[in-house]
Amino acid sequence: MDTHDLILVTIIAEPVLEDRLTREIMDRGATGYTITEVRGRGTRGIRTGDIPGQSIRIETLVTVDVADALLDRAAEAWFPHYAVVAWASPVRVIRGDKF
Amino acid sequence: MDTHDLILVTIIAEPVLEDRLTREIMDRGATGYTITEVRGRGTRGIRTGDIPGQSIRIETLVTVDVADALLDRAAEAWFPHYAVVAWASPVRVIRGDKF
Amino acid sequence: MDTHDLILVTIIAEPVLEDRLTREIMDRGATGYTITEVRGRGTRGIRTGDIPGQSIRIETLVTVDVADALLDRAAEAWFPHYAVVAWASPVRVIRGDKF
Repeated sequence: MDTHDLILVTIIAEPVLEDRLTREIMDRGATGYTITEVRGRGTRGIRTGDIPGQSIRIETLVTVDVADALLDRAAEAWFPHYAVVAWASPVRVIRGDKF
Repeated sequence: MDTHDLILVTIIAEPVLEDRLTREIMDRGATGYTITEVRGRGTRGIRTGDIPGQSIRIETLVTVDVADALLDRAAEAWFPHYAVVAWASPVRVIRGDKF
Repeated sequence: MDTHDLILVTIIAEPVLEDRLTREIMDRGATGYTITEVRGRGTRGIRTGDIPGQSIRIETLVTVDVADALLDRAAEAWFPHYAVVAWASPVRVIRGDKF
């Protein structure tokens, strides 16, 4: 089977950040993303009460280099100012598309 | 702890494909699946505009052999005709169920 | 880049279990979680019909020790009584937060 190894980058953020984050993701070399409406509760200040607050999950399949650029950007520009959580994990993707 | 190693196969597709894809997934040996309503934007033609379009994410926990069969099927039968993205990643699952 | 290695624990369960499971997750050392409304079908008894039933996906980023405690708890206390599926996978998380 023809697959390639990519990195799945997942970002949990406040809904108001969707336009900014997805634009920055595409600007750094991603070719697409998926957004899921979720509810979150955490120490990052999204919500401190008992009721989980609305958040979005942004996922994008990217090369190792783009993943590093996105995590760098998250750590430097998003993390200090917003309640953002971001992580990366390796996945095996079916080919036929440019990423 | 009693766990086993399985493959989490994730498929992003147009909602109209749900019945077909889930039937093919079960036919190839999966014992279940999870569906999430998502919004997607990508180069695979789901949407090329600025507004992310509705998609579904199908996830299924399967053995390595079933995962390979699903990715093969995705590459051969789904990928050329539909805006489908599919990937696989290894996970550790709590036992007690047949997969 | 400053990242740390954590475990992403994912739990699929009936919506009625949300309060119990999230309380137990936090009690065992998690500092947050994300919930997604999903539809599920599987052999674990969630639904046996043709129409996928409503479920929730609970995700939490935790240390290896907390992940093991959660999977142990899932196997011992949740799995025998409820239609719960749970798995773990390693991820690389941007730092700046305590987990």
